[in-house]
Amino acid sequence: MKTVIGVDLGGTNIVSAVVDEKGKVLGKDKRKTLSSKGAKGVLDRIVESIHAASHNSGQPWASHLAVGIGSPGPLDPFKGVVIYTPNLGWKNVPIVAILKKKLGKKVFLENDANLAALGESWIGAGKGEKVVLCVTLGTGVGGGLIVDGKIFQGATGVSNHIGHIVVDPKGPPAPYGNSGILEQYVSATGIVRLAKLAGLKPPAGAPLEAHSFQLMAEAGNRKALKVYEEAGRMLGVGLTTSLHLLNPSVVIFSGGVAGAGDLLLKPMMKELQKRSFKSHLKGLKFRMAKLGDNMGAVGAARLAWQSLKKA
Amino acid sequence: MKTVIGVDLGGTNIVSAVVDEKGKVLGKDKRKTLSSKGAKGVLDRIVESIHAASHNSGQPWASHLAVGIGSPGPLDPFKGVVIYTPNLGWKNVPIVAILKKKLGKKVFLENDANLAALGESWIGAGKGEKVVLCVTLGTGVGGGLIVDGKIFQGATGVSNHIGHIVVDPKGPPAPYGNSGILEQYVSATGIVRLAKLAGLKPPAGAPLEAHSFQLMAEAGNRKALKVYEEAGRMLGVGLTTSLHLLNPSVVIFSGGVAGAGDLLLKPMMKELQKRSFKSHLKGLKFRMAKLGDNMGAVGAARLAWQSLKKA
Repeated sequence: MKTVIGVDLGGTNIVSAVVDEKGKVLGKDKRKTLSSKGAKGVLDRIVESIHAASHNSGQPWASHLAVGIGSPGPLDPFKGVVIYTPNLGWKNVPIVAILKKKLGKKVFLENDANLAALGESWIGAGKGEKVVLCVTLGTGVGGGLIVDGKIFQGATGVSNHIGHIVVDPKGPPAPYGNSGILEQYVSATGIVRLAKLAGLKPPAGAPLEAHSFQLMAEAGNRKALKVYEEAGRMLGVGLTTSLHLLNPSVVIFSGGVAGAGDLLLKPMMKELQKRSFKSHLKGLKFRMAKLGDNMGAVGAARLAWQSLKKA
Repeated sequence: MKTVIGVDLGGTNIVSAVVDEKGKVLGKDKRKTLSSKGAKGVLDRIVESIHAASHNSGQPWASHLAVGIGSPGPLDPFKGVVIYTPNLGWKNVPIVAILKKKLGKKVFLENDANLAALGESWIGAGKGEKVVLCVTLGTGVGGGLIVDGKIFQGATGVSNHIGHIVVDPKGPPAPYGNSGILEQYVSATGIVRLAKLAGLKPPAGAPLEAHSFQLMAEAGNRKALKVYEEAGRMLGVGLTTSLHLLNPSVVIFSGGVAGAGDLLLKPMMKELQKRSFKSHLKGLKFRMAKLGDNMGAVGAARLAWQSLKKA
């Protein structure tokens, strides 16, 4: 049997999966990234995770034709270099060359948000759809775009950064000079920011994080409800812009903040219905991601299969 | 010799061109649209224009393998129907079926902004570029996106509407429910709106149009300069969003308002440098369209050549 290995490198966890040509996961490994160990230490952990997944799959090492790996960006998928990842503290790490040497296999790199979208488009919530827009509402906001089954890479591999589109030019400053970007409203960090602005505090003992405010909103706290209404409204503004440019057939949400469900999606839809063309909303589906924990690794495996065919 | 005919249907003019497989224009016709004649009258004028271009090319009628036509949108390129064009007063006109019958040739339809981009990408300012974003600053603001030489159509053919992306959610209302869209700042109509807001009037005898205010700005009028600064700044906001989503290799400007040049482009660049990732601006080119009057018709011809190959 022929297989590939997909790896999802995150700030918290490394997930590796041995995947066949139809998207079936034959073996998996999940372990802490331990980013404090630095690039060298994390690269060793990636190799360990890959070997563990291979072992768990019961497939011989020689059956793995290639490795796909997803990393937080910005990165250069063509040169195989992670340019910069604040979460890992990496700068200009030639991850493809290093792993190729350590594993003796072909290695392909893409940003994690695009691979999550590719996984969902392959065997998840975007299966069979022509244009798949994935929006990850996590610590930050990530985006991935799949057109006819392939990642839309733009000219240099830095497309689909939906978290950084401007939703209010007079909004709060972002670290790199921009201001009022989507991520500042509808990421976990953005929710906490809005909650602080509203003078909200989590209940005694609860952590200062988005989920605490989600629970407060679900319990009917008016200020917390308004925070999610504002976040959803801004998500609607950002999506209006995205629909006008990209005209997707399905929008797929993932990430912890998406767990707020209708708290977020109702004000989002209201804004979309007000602002978008009818032709953008006609037939457009909104779905939650299906692949959960495996999303990134399965997408990375799909990338490996596609890259092998191209080569 | 084998040729196709490209037609650019505009609110003011119809331009038809007989074009060979390399993009050479062998014959051309340009005439007033006379949209007051209604769909039937305009369709007759299109047919006349096509025959005139054919005659001017010196090529026999049988040498024309197909006709490509560009129309203002929204339209359905797959069904060949113009859904709605305020400038022409058309609603649900099955233009492809009608012209096919009148001409006895294959007919292909796309929106005019995408075809302008396709023309520039083929033999104009975007030649050889991987991802071409065209921005037409005319009465409205239109956009076209070409990826690897082909129009990015989205799921249902209503992508690349850059004029309708939200640049200020608290901005002025647009007719269809949206508000603060790019078109309201940097189109000819938008410039007049901003000028009125600033209490500006054109000099005695000059028409109330963007070009009058451009002349005032060029002559050093402070209020007029501020109008163009604001328009350029908002163009920068909208382009920041577009770069983050689309990551083009070249941005091409066309249309009358683009004639303001640095009045508009300097504040635009300032905003882009402040708001965008370095990786989006690195190597990115900004150019003016090269094909002038022929842009849409040449793009329509390219569409016809590509569609013939697919069929």
